[in-house]
Amino acid sequence: MKIVITAGGTSEPIDDVRKITNTSTGSLGLAIGRAFLDGYRQDIEKIYYLHGEKALWPEDELVEPVTIGGTIDLLEKLGDVLRNDDIDAVIHAMAVSDYMVDEVTTVEAIRTGVKSDKIQGHKISSSIDDLAIILKRTPKVISTIKPASPDTLLVGFKLLSSVPHEELIEVATNLMKKNDCDFVLANDLSEIGNGKHRGYLVHRDGSVDTMETKDEIGRMIAKRVTEQVKNR
Amino acid sequence: MKIVITAGGTSEPIDDVRKITNTSTGSLGLAIGRAFLDGYRQDIEKIYYLHGEKALWPEDELVEPVTIGGTIDLLEKLGDVLRNDDIDAVIHAMAVSDYMVDEVTTVEAIRTGVKSDKIQGHKISSSIDDLAIILKRTPKVISTIKPASPDTLLVGFKLLSSVPHEELIEVATNLMKKNDCDFVLANDLSEIGNGKHRGYLVHRDGSVDTMETKDEIGRMIAKRVTEQVKNR
Repeated sequence: MKIVITAGGTSEPIDDVRKITNTSTGSLGLAIGRAFLDGYRQDIEKIYYLHGEKALWPEDELVEPVTIGGTIDLLEKLGDVLRNDDIDAVIHAMAVSDYMVDEVTTVEAIRTGVKSDKIQGHKISSSIDDLAIILKRTPKVISTIKPASPDTLLVGFKLLSSVPHEELIEVATNLMKKNDCDFVLANDLSEIGNGKHRGYLVHRDGSVDTMETKDEIGRMIAKRVTEQVKNR
Repeated sequence: MKIVITAGGTSEPIDDVRKITNTSTGSLGLAIGRAFLDGYRQDIEKIYYLHGEKALWPEDELVEPVTIGGTIDLLEKLGDVLRNDDIDAVIHAMAVSDYMVDEVTTVEAIRTGVKSDKIQGHKISSSIDDLAIILKRTPKVISTIKPASPDTLLVGFKLLSSVPHEELIEVATNLMKKNDCDFVLANDLSEIGNGKHRGYLVHRDGSVDTMETKDEIGRMIAKRVTEQVKNR
């Protein structure tokens, strides 16, 4: 079986030195990668490991690490892998930025509609009093996976912050339907920390596996994915 | 001698999961720390190593690592060290954000002056079409060091991007005068990469040491600082 794991966070450049990132460390993706290698090594032919710049990857002869910058970079590199190889499953754990930089401007320029002359060059001056960054939505990478490779099993991820449990599962289920996921791992920031990481793996039939740590999440995803790929 | 090295980048939160960071890896700070430990170990009593979240530190019994989040966090923790211990030198290599988040809003809200009802909660919704982040300037941490501890030797850093050499040295000299630095390390992004890192260590008298790699920069700073501290 050949799989793709995406892990860590994308980073969207603002200028030559500044960027918008997210707090993802990539440790959940790492736990998933290790769970595949430890538990199902005999079934693995290759793991493409697409990871954010600061994220670790499981170093192993079966793992091909691919460094990812921004969302467009992820879109292109994931597309390349899906086009050029037969991928059995994509575990899309990467925290993909919802937004990328559209324009760096000033509050005054937005108010007046007159383009600011304060913004120029590769590195934004440090002396602007009303700097504003306008963002645009990034393309939804997850929505491109099944259209590009319909037979690939897809595990989506949904991270929310301090929402009721029912809402978390509902949002995860909507993500599943919208993108034709086979599983969605739902988690909430308020249930992560101090060595714990509560995760809910939602199946297509609505059943849910509940895990308490990253390692448990990794093992459950490796198990469910391998079962399903082998039963095809 | 007791010294403080700041290294890596600050990160300024946008919401619970997003943040503005910079591309600093902390590797220059690491080279400086190692140069002190390798070349002047007998002179070192302690190195406080204030580092960004993703930056490595030189692991050593003489080094006390302190993790730094945003600019305000740096301001507080550096202030604590300067108040509570006698610090001979501060090597302020950290890439401190010039800006922090003032408000997350929408372009429409800025234009109309009517507060947006789209922005709420701990994690910004992923479905806003005209998201805008208004930034405000951070306090200048470097300007607080000499007032807090006048006898501490101070090495400032200036990183620019693709400017003429004369301008780089001029900007570094201005930084020196403004903040009463003893040395300023000036460097330009266009002269960094592929294992090279051109650095210009500007002295108070206007003389300049030129180095070609991070290790050379580290060794020169360790040498100049130790000389000056011992000659007092």
